[in-house]
Amino acid sequence: MANSASGDSMTDRIVRVLDTFTSERTVQTAAQIGRRAGLPSSSAHRIVDDLVRAGLLERDEDRRLRLGLRLWELALRGSAALRLRQAALPHMESVQSVVREHTQLAVLEQEEALFLERLSHPEAGANITRIAGRLPLHASSSGLVLLAHAPRALRDRVLAEPLRPLTTETVTDAAVLRRRLAAIRAQGFVVTPGSIEQVSTGVAVPIREGGEVIAALSVVLPRQTSPEPALAALRAAASGIEAALREDRR
Amino acid sequence: MANSASGDSMTDRIVRVLDTFTSERTVQTAAQIGRRAGLPSSSAHRIVDDLVRAGLLERDEDRRLRLGLRLWELALRGSAALRLRQAALPHMESVQSVVREHTQLAVLEQEEALFLERLSHPEAGANITRIAGRLPLHASSSGLVLLAHAPRALRDRVLAEPLRPLTTETVTDAAVLRRRLAAIRAQGFVVTPGSIEQVSTGVAVPIREGGEVIAALSVVLPRQTSPEPALAALRAAASGIEAALREDRR
Repeated sequence: MANSASGDSMTDRIVRVLDTFTSERTVQTAAQIGRRAGLPSSSAHRIVDDLVRAGLLERDEDRRLRLGLRLWELALRGSAALRLRQAALPHMESVQSVVREHTQLAVLEQEEALFLERLSHPEAGANITRIAGRLPLHASSSGLVLLAHAPRALRDRVLAEPLRPLTTETVTDAAVLRRRLAAIRAQGFVVTPGSIEQVSTGVAVPIREGGEVIAALSVVLPRQTSPEPALAALRAAASGIEAALREDRR
Repeated sequence: MANSASGDSMTDRIVRVLDTFTSERTVQTAAQIGRRAGLPSSSAHRIVDDLVRAGLLERDEDRRLRLGLRLWELALRGSAALRLRQAALPHMESVQSVVREHTQLAVLEQEEALFLERLSHPEAGANITRIAGRLPLHASSSGLVLLAHAPRALRDRVLAEPLRPLTTETVTDAAVLRRRLAAIRAQGFVVTPGSIEQVSTGVAVPIREGGEVIAALSVVLPRQTSPEPALAALRAAASGIEAALREDRR
């Protein structure tokens, strides 16, 4: 019942439809969705109609589609991401009031750093990250913290793959990276000048719950800014978030 | 292909499964999900397996299920809610630094006020709202602002239904409420003492884009607090958010 002739489940097809929406592409026609999701036109139209009826997509006057608030509500209401983000937000605001650049919260998801939250100062410098956006583990400061504390099997897998450079300063040598991850575990933070964008430095620290690293807290600074004040603010915030998570468990 | 024997679409069944998760119930077994979604056990297990494979649900060591980060990512990445919330957040922080209670952003969704964001001061008073939570239009300050500016047909429909009291102070007389909505449109704000919880006062203002009211910004104050300073902060923030949305459109 749930499977199409080609053997993929209806759930997969729905995910493929939702996956065609991005921060740069928030409005699409049903035909565009079908093409981008690799679905036959009739099947794309039927799924889109079902999703509109369920409120997961919304149709405007021009019959173009966007993600529905109902999807947002379903995804957030019972989500662990919301719990972490709520515990983190007041402490991220404290970092933000000191650093006045970009402050971000990321978790490990399918071998990438997924950004749950980002606060930005109106006059802050360049920053490639977006909420619900992803960055490679080996290049971003948050990703490096998450990779350093990831299960060994995942670490070995990531290091065995080709490490794509984002700038000329991204570390792409597996042996160098392995030593760097050990240093991150030992020192409890990372500073990555120019690894994602030549003009910026990332600074990140781990956030722990029950002894496990569950997230990374980071700031993005202009390259010429000294990282020490930001690092002190990040460490204080990480402690505060860890205390809030313990409190929340009771 | 997408329809079960009982005629509901697979999309409906997936929504029913996701809908069993709430802020109080973030972890469930497949059997609990099936029961709460009103699905036959075999069908519930199959949908849950599909959702786990797609990353929309995650299974822990005890085989219990929670909402997956992938769902959160799909819902947020291309969402209009995120755009509004990002435009609003810095201005909500400004309100928060003055009022130091609860500051909230709500939109109209399926005849209720749906809360997109909430900032709370650590020592703030009582507050029933949650992010991705809902409140009735006729009782909450945000809901009253949204209802006052809603299409006439929706307003008439809400006023024709029985208006449930949340406290002894909730206005439940349709004629009284209709006059109140006209006053809200004329004065540009609402103050609702004790309407949701006896100990609190809600204060809300509209946020406009392209001439339409698209959201309400509100604070929840302890009953004895005078609403004027909060109202001034809300009005300044609403102007700031409207300017940010205009800027974002360019």
